[in-house]
Amino acid sequence: MTWLTETIGYVAAALTTASFLPQAILTLRTRDTAALSLTMYSLFTLGVLCWLVYGIFIGNTIIIVANVITFVLAASILAVKIYNCFSKPR
Amino acid sequence: MTWLTETIGYVAAALTTASFLPQAILTLRTRDTAALSLTMYSLFTLGVLCWLVYGIFIGNTIIIVANVITFVLAASILAVKIYNCFSKPR
Repeated sequence: MTWLTETIGYVAAALTTASFLPQAILTLRTRDTAALSLTMYSLFTLGVLCWLVYGIFIGNTIIIVANVITFVLAASILAVKIYNCFSKPR
Repeated sequence: MTWLTETIGYVAAALTTASFLPQAILTLRTRDTAALSLTMYSLFTLGVLCWLVYGIFIGNTIIIVANVITFVLAASILAVKIYNCFSKPR
């Protein structure tokens, strides 16, 4: 793997992981989840958990770190969405 | 890599890719993007594009296919969000 390929991989991982931070901040601040899909966040959070298990199995630190962070952020958004679904009809 | 590890990897890729389909359907149907973070979808779409380039560089079909699908879905959501941002204040 060349340095360019490796760098693009790191940038990709950093961007897709970091992207959930502004969404988590927006959701936790406004508590507005009307436009967020419950199915999306359920499947995505489960998927990230699978990526984490996969990373642990193959011993890849980047995959583990990126998915621990993404899991915390996605699970926070999902928690607010579930709370809103059960507390009032949207 | 054992068959279990490989299976978890495939399940992880399928879940995180498929998760954006219900969100894209919801967003395209309702056009409601008030609770969606513009920063998230900008960073995420760019990140997925980087994953796609990375997949092409290392010749990994799974990474390429998963990220082509995710890119189309994420870019559709981002397009509606940008349209809403410019057409009316949210």
